[in-house]
Amino acid sequence: MSKIRTPLILVNFKTYSEATGRKAVELAKTAEKISLETEACIALAPQFVDIASIASTVSVPVFAQHIDPITPGSFTGHILPESIRETGAVGTLINHSERRLKLADIDATITRARESDLLSVVCANNATVSAAAAALKPNMIAVEPPELIGTGIPVSKAKPEVVSGTVDLVKRMNPDVVILCGAGITRGEDVAAALRLGTEGVLVASGVVKAKDPYKVLLEFAESITKP
Amino acid sequence: MSKIRTPLILVNFKTYSEATGRKAVELAKTAEKISLETEACIALAPQFVDIASIASTVSVPVFAQHIDPITPGSFTGHILPESIRETGAVGTLINHSERRLKLADIDATITRARESDLLSVVCANNATVSAAAAALKPNMIAVEPPELIGTGIPVSKAKPEVVSGTVDLVKRMNPDVVILCGAGITRGEDVAAALRLGTEGVLVASGVVKAKDPYKVLLEFAESITKP
Amino acid sequence: MSKIRTPLILVNFKTYSEATGRKAVELAKTAEKISLETEACIALAPQFVDIASIASTVSVPVFAQHIDPITPGSFTGHILPESIRETGAVGTLINHSERRLKLADIDATITRARESDLLSVVCANNATVSAAAAALKPNMIAVEPPELIGTGIPVSKAKPEVVSGTVDLVKRMNPDVVILCGAGITRGEDVAAALRLGTEGVLVASGVVKAKDPYKVLLEFAESITKP
Amino acid sequence: MSKIRTPLILVNFKTYSEATGRKAVELAKTAEKISLETEACIALAPQFVDIASIASTVSVPVFAQHIDPITPGSFTGHILPESIRETGAVGTLINHSERRLKLADIDATITRARESDLLSVVCANNATVSAAAAALKPNMIAVEPPELIGTGIPVSKAKPEVVSGTVDLVKRMNPDVVILCGAGITRGEDVAAALRLGTEGVLVASGVVKAKDPYKVLLEFAESITKP
Repeated sequence: MSKIRTPLILVNFKTYSEATGRKAVELAKTAEKISLETEACIALAPQFVDIASIASTVSVPVFAQHIDPITPGSFTGHILPESIRETGAVGTLINHSERRLKLADIDATITRARESDLLSVVCANNATVSAAAAALKPNMIAVEPPELIGTGIPVSKAKPEVVSGTVDLVKRMNPDVVILCGAGITRGEDVAAALRLGTEGVLVASGVVKAKDPYKVLLEFAESITKP
Repeated sequence: MSKIRTPLILVNFKTYSEATGRKAVELAKTAEKISLETEACIALAPQFVDIASIASTVSVPVFAQHIDPITPGSFTGHILPESIRETGAVGTLINHSERRLKLADIDATITRARESDLLSVVCANNATVSAAAAALKPNMIAVEPPELIGTGIPVSKAKPEVVSGTVDLVKRMNPDVVILCGAGITRGEDVAAALRLGTEGVLVASGVVKAKDPYKVLLEFAESITKP
Repeated sequence: MSKIRTPLILVNFKTYSEATGRKAVELAKTAEKISLETEACIALAPQFVDIASIASTVSVPVFAQHIDPITPGSFTGHILPESIRETGAVGTLINHSERRLKLADIDATITRARESDLLSVVCANNATVSAAAAALKPNMIAVEPPELIGTGIPVSKAKPEVVSGTVDLVKRMNPDVVILCGAGITRGEDVAAALRLGTEGVLVASGVVKAKDPYKVLLEFAESITKP
Repeated sequence: MSKIRTPLILVNFKTYSEATGRKAVELAKTAEKISLETEACIALAPQFVDIASIASTVSVPVFAQHIDPITPGSFTGHILPESIRETGAVGTLINHSERRLKLADIDATITRARESDLLSVVCANNATVSAAAAALKPNMIAVEPPELIGTGIPVSKAKPEVVSGTVDLVKRMNPDVVILCGAGITRGEDVAAALRLGTEGVLVASGVVKAKDPYKVLLEFAESITKP
């Protein structure tokens, strides 16, 4: 977990054209620049095919967007945790709202992540589900009300009770879990609000990737956690 | 479709540890060597994360093991056809028995492959399903009885009627579709038998990847199609 | 197939509250009344739990909304074809747009329906997918553009080319398949238009179930096929 | 929850031919007879289509094998909680190993069960997953190691630590949850062992349904909890 510090800004590249292939590497360089300038910990979750080129180009930590709960074998079209690790990623999202998993598979996936030396960030849609996820002992939980994702309406302002409720429930069950929040975050003050609610970072996507000027937005995010 | 010629040997790397990361690149070099020596067309379907390194290292055509029927956007953890193309692949498996898709999604995925300049190879479990797949106008169909996959019992010998029945049904519906067969193929004579049954190639996996000497097996396959 | 005649009006009860439990039986009685009055063939597809009470109360043919491609055994929460038949249904929808299946499972489900003496009605979203479904030899195909379902914009008027294109493609492949169309049908003239395009019936849902006066709408449908 | 008392014997009929249609009603009568004779609480989970006939024939409580997290509407082929309740069931299994659900859907399904006045019994494959399920506040949790289901090797003897570990973890999180265990239970002493490990009942299936003499086996189970 050496490269990861909190507060953490984790940028999910999804399958946006602005963050695919060469553009993904460019965005990764922008994130690295800001990370070096501000000393904020910025991590990136690009598409599977772009992990290798990003991890070999920049120094910021790279996450997968998903792994499957499999061991090496006959699993055509699936994501082997060991292959993600070998490619240079240090962690993985699990159960993102766009890639929900069965409960038993989340448990097995967290185990496979640990065995493959990958940090696990389990996404959850509310405080109750976050508490359930915490029982499975991942490294981090990212609470994201799906109805706010991509809206520009920040969870930390529109639904602060979801965030603080998650912090309460999760910390009571498992004080070691790092809690992030996400959905609708587009400004530095949204990030600051998230930290004030007890989280240790944010999971962001379109707010950065689809911004007119990603450098400016990500710099604002970084400064909001380093110059609070 | 420039780089692809028939008869075709398409090697699925699945998520075998023998074909992950650096080992995947090594196996790709072996395939390239044989391809250059024999002039057989050998294509490779590695894991997503290994496509870039293989496509930039060897001259043999590379396929993805799966793509999702999506356009750029909010699809965390999914496989964007355009990103596969940009990474250097020329085609993709669709609906492998270990990654079955819904019918409407196979239709949409073939369309997305075409739009992204990727060859589509739809896998099917029997002659009837192959005929259904042919109605969707993919570039190729690979018929594989799931119960023979990984057994070493070659479909071309154990179930020749499945192969010839597929050729009959598919060619009647759509004479332009290239037909491959797979499952249990481990020897050159299995490949030759497949061609005699009317196919234009084979889809292989463990027979090559998990062989004691992949070079020897793949050379035997290549010679069986170039020195019939 | 004794009780089923074409032209056919097949009413999908979905999980509408207006067609659940006692209300489902009431709606079935309404359909039976119209069927007896007009001699139109009206079939009903209620929820699983309501099949028994409807099939034992009315004389109109009953369909399931879905079955699973399973044989008796350990399949908790699944739909066994034999149990549907024993309950009094004569057929089943397969692959409705709200319950899409994998291609290989549609093939297996059609086989299981046949073995269980159930008529198979495979739903498809466009002409190409209908052609693929026809290769699997179901009894009927119902083409429904998903974007029109529940809109009140009738497929037979908004997308006549989808309906006639389906008729063309499917009949060329398999002239024995009965073709229905659905989506947005709310008036008798929509039904008549569907028949003029070459179909032998319609698959309807909200247009009847959620109508202010289901009797009136269904009577209009029935008369449009019996007094053309 | 009036009709349900602990210790509870919950018999899952799965899709066994021995527990389908008329045979399901016969088996329900057998269970009712034993329940009346021994005063043991025996509940039954038949297939959806058989709920109505069983609930209207016998006095023992009936469960569904699954419900979907939906409200009334356009969900062809799905299981509406309200329809299950109206049919006479008092509860439902959720997330059985043969019908696993996504984590967010388990949360939503428990809520829908509560809103529909149905008891929720969430199945889990190990102690950790049971703890996660407990965070979602169902009425009961049934822990069943999938590898023992249908084997005749009783979980209460082969893996007592899974059962006692589940009791420990779950009770610490949520002392109100009733804990059942299942898998491989075929004799009265297996049931007694389950209770000694801290559970309040068992979830059984083939051990009863596929027994040569279900009456004898179920009587043995019932006496093991009423004459301990």
